Amino acid sequence: MRREITMQKTTGRPQLKENLKFFLTASMKGISQVLLIDNAVTGFFILLIITSTSIFLGIITLLSTIIGTLIGIVGGADKESVTQGLFGFNSVLTGIALALFMNGPYHWIIALLGAALAAILAAAMMHAMKPLGIPVLSAPFILITWFTLLVSYRLKAFTLTSELVPQDLARWKLDTTGKVDWTEGAFYGIGQIFFLHETIAGVLLFLAVFWAGWRLGIFAIMGNLTALLASYWLGGEHTLIFMGLYGYNGILAILAVAIVFNDNKGWIQPLLSGILAAFLTVPLTASITTLLLPYGLPALTMPFILSTWIILGARKVLPKL
Amino acid sequence: MRREITMQKTTGRPQLKENLKFFLTASMKGISQVLLIDNAVTGFFILLIITSTSIFLGIITLLSTIIGTLIGIVGGADKESVTQGLFGFNSVLTGIALALFMNGPYHWIIALLGAALAAILAAAMMHAMKPLGIPVLSAPFILITWFTLLVSYRLKAFTLTSELVPQDLARWKLDTTGKVDWTEGAFYGIGQIFFLHETIAGVLLFLAVFWAGWRLGIFAIMGNLTALLASYWLGGEHTLIFMGLYGYNGILAILAVAIVFNDNKGWIQPLLSGILAAFLTVPLTASITTLLLPYGLPALTMPFILSTWIILGARKVLPKL
Amino acid sequence: MRREITMQKTTGRPQLKENLKFFLTASMKGISQVLLIDNAVTGFFILLIITSTSIFLGIITLLSTIIGTLIGIVGGADKESVTQGLFGFNSVLTGIALALFMNGPYHWIIALLGAALAAILAAAMMHAMKPLGIPVLSAPFILITWFTLLVSYRLKAFTLTSELVPQDLARWKLDTTGKVDWTEGAFYGIGQIFFLHETIAGVLLFLAVFWAGWRLGIFAIMGNLTALLASYWLGGEHTLIFMGLYGYNGILAILAVAIVFNDNKGWIQPLLSGILAAFLTVPLTASITTLLLPYGLPALTMPFILSTWIILGARKVLPKL
Repeated sequence: MRREITMQKTTGRPQLKENLKFFLTASMKGISQVLLIDNAVTGFFILLIITSTSIFLGIITLLSTIIGTLIGIVGGADKESVTQGLFGFNSVLTGIALALFMNGPYHWIIALLGAALAAILAAAMMHAMKPLGIPVLSAPFILITWFTLLVSYRLKAFTLTSELVPQDLARWKLDTTGKVDWTEGAFYGIGQIFFLHETIAGVLLFLAVFWAGWRLGIFAIMGNLTALLASYWLGGEHTLIFMGLYGYNGILAILAVAIVFNDNKGWIQPLLSGILAAFLTVPLTASITTLLLPYGLPALTMPFILSTWIILGARKVLPKL
Repeated sequence: MRREITMQKTTGRPQLKENLKFFLTASMKGISQVLLIDNAVTGFFILLIITSTSIFLGIITLLSTIIGTLIGIVGGADKESVTQGLFGFNSVLTGIALALFMNGPYHWIIALLGAALAAILAAAMMHAMKPLGIPVLSAPFILITWFTLLVSYRLKAFTLTSELVPQDLARWKLDTTGKVDWTEGAFYGIGQIFFLHETIAGVLLFLAVFWAGWRLGIFAIMGNLTALLASYWLGGEHTLIFMGLYGYNGILAILAVAIVFNDNKGWIQPLLSGILAAFLTVPLTASITTLLLPYGLPALTMPFILSTWIILGARKVLPKL
Repeated sequence: MRREITMQKTTGRPQLKENLKFFLTASMKGISQVLLIDNAVTGFFILLIITSTSIFLGIITLLSTIIGTLIGIVGGADKESVTQGLFGFNSVLTGIALALFMNGPYHWIIALLGAALAAILAAAMMHAMKPLGIPVLSAPFILITWFTLLVSYRLKAFTLTSELVPQDLARWKLDTTGKVDWTEGAFYGIGQIFFLHETIAGVLLFLAVFWAGWRLGIFAIMGNLTALLASYWLGGEHTLIFMGLYGYNGILAILAVAIVFNDNKGWIQPLLSGILAAFLTVPLTASITTLLLPYGLPALTMPFILSTWIILGARKVLPKL
């Protein structure tokens, strides 16, 4: 006992350094986990990409992952989950989304409070889904964001940007005209995951994914392609397709189903089930957007989550899927 | 090892025959399981009834149950579930519903893809509900059908028949006038389960149920009667009641609660809890229809599912229910 | 064996008395459990308060808790749950809510049938949530009440009071003007839990809570204060705030999170997590009300339930929360 105390004393400095390193790694992985990647360098690279697009968003991203990671540590979560960045990524997404969708002088406070709540809800959902052996993915982010956006109709301190408008489904008309731009389509999708709308940001994000593993990169491209072609071929709105709004869920779904939550290291089974998952996000994006129309809410990553949950759940009963 | 191989070789032909028989039985049970019945002859009889009403629907039914059963086999599900037709019935229902509610030249492709997805979602839901010891029933069918219908507002390749119209609840007026026709009411209910609208089809379906067991038949009649009288007495719309739209959920609920998922072989407890379940489907039909009004979606078998889940779940805590 | 029989015979009278006492205690606790309190005297006191406001509501309350408790006993539930009043409180809430929201000559029958159903749904949800180790709280009451209110749009026997009007979110305008009355705000909140709108009823209900434990009383006041100040400060509608419509969920949430479902007997952790839970009910009240606007449904205790579920669930992964 005494010996330990002595040791702690003498190693005080190095341990602080150790702790700080652990904390920074976990925080950066919190950013990379948005793309289901467990890699601190990729996370740091993504932080740079976001910051170069908007310094404000960069700060929100950094603070959000720090808040989420801190809640994991202070709340007493098991160290492994914290190290992998599992308490950070829902906070990152929530922080960015609320910073962009909310308005008014204090919207950054709401964004950071939302980031904190996202980590708490993530913990609750981890507990609820543990018996199923299915990951919570970014569902906590979606729930916190949707509920916060709805708050604005009742509490004055919450104001929405003008982008989000509730509409009546009975009076909705589908309009698929609009220009076709495959370059934008190719790179806007991955940017949309972080709410970025620049071709260069998309290119750099793909590089960040390739850094973490060339297999991840190839599958990400395949997922994007699948969703892009499917949405175009099925007659989606061009304005949405070439903004990448059909693509980003495909990228996330293929990474989750084919690689991250798949034991099969071959090519055929991962590719088939991954492409199925990516394809599924297209009709899911269409239906979820319709379901949310009367509330003026964005679909966010919900299509990816539902598609992934269905395939991962089905795989427990149909192991060859 | 070698011996097995030899045996497989010499028994190649008979085994193929065996496999085909197994496959056909499972597929026919996939049709009878729509009525919660595990009987291949009843399934085949139902297939004939559907085909005699519409050859197109008959083909869709056959292909759907084959697709669902195949997914169970190829996906590697445990053989018992496949044999009982548990991978077929959600596909059958989804195939028929989408073939009827969707329009355009390729609606049968959407129907069959929906049938395939229904089997995959069924697997995922079986996994999720296993710890509860509660069956998934036809919930996968409902979710796939609702989501597919909603897709039509965003993807041009999906077009709805004009039957489904979103309406504003604030401007809804209840109109219970309309003719009273107890004969139609008596036989349209069971037909509605398979989306059939003919008295003769209803009569034959009741016969198919009686074939599987006279107890099933008697209870089916009781369930229909309960729902019919309750909806009339509580003031439901005559146009819906005598189209059988209040009755079919009552039939399914009484079969599930009183017989199929009930260990009690007596009469009093099954009859009481079964009639309670059938009765409950009436207010549930009313409320679910209201909830879906702004989206123009049909209630399908949701009232039966909720009623059955409530009673079966409650029975785990209140064993005498 | 014989001896037991003899004893039962000779003790027939006293046992009847014993059973009656058990039944009455359980029924009164069914009323106190609405406030998460396991205390028959508090329950009886609350019954008096309700009855003194309205004899009709008092009778409904008494009959509802009796119905719920009877269903627990006759259904064969484990005795401990019944004794604690766990089968009564959802019935009490449902009975009162439906008696107030429904109209027409037979609305009291609907209220009592609803009370019976609430006990059955409570049993089903207890089973479903048991593996999670999270209490069902008053969720069964909310589901039964919402569904029953929606029934009115389709079955003539169900008629709503004019209070509940579906509205279009697209045409909704937030109006926060209205008088500020902190006295009403202070005492209307706890009254709202039982749908009472009198200052004196609120004062007496606080006394009933203090009777069960001064710690409960102090926390109840803190929860009310948190929700009241937060909703005022965030710019809620004055008409709602000072009717207590933002306060009552805060009271319930702090009691659940800080005391009833908390092993920590100290002050700091309970106070912090309890105030967090009470605070959370404010944005949740705002968002749930928005979500229900197109259906004209009241939020009831849903904000309390979601807030409590989130914190209790998160605590399983973040034990220091």
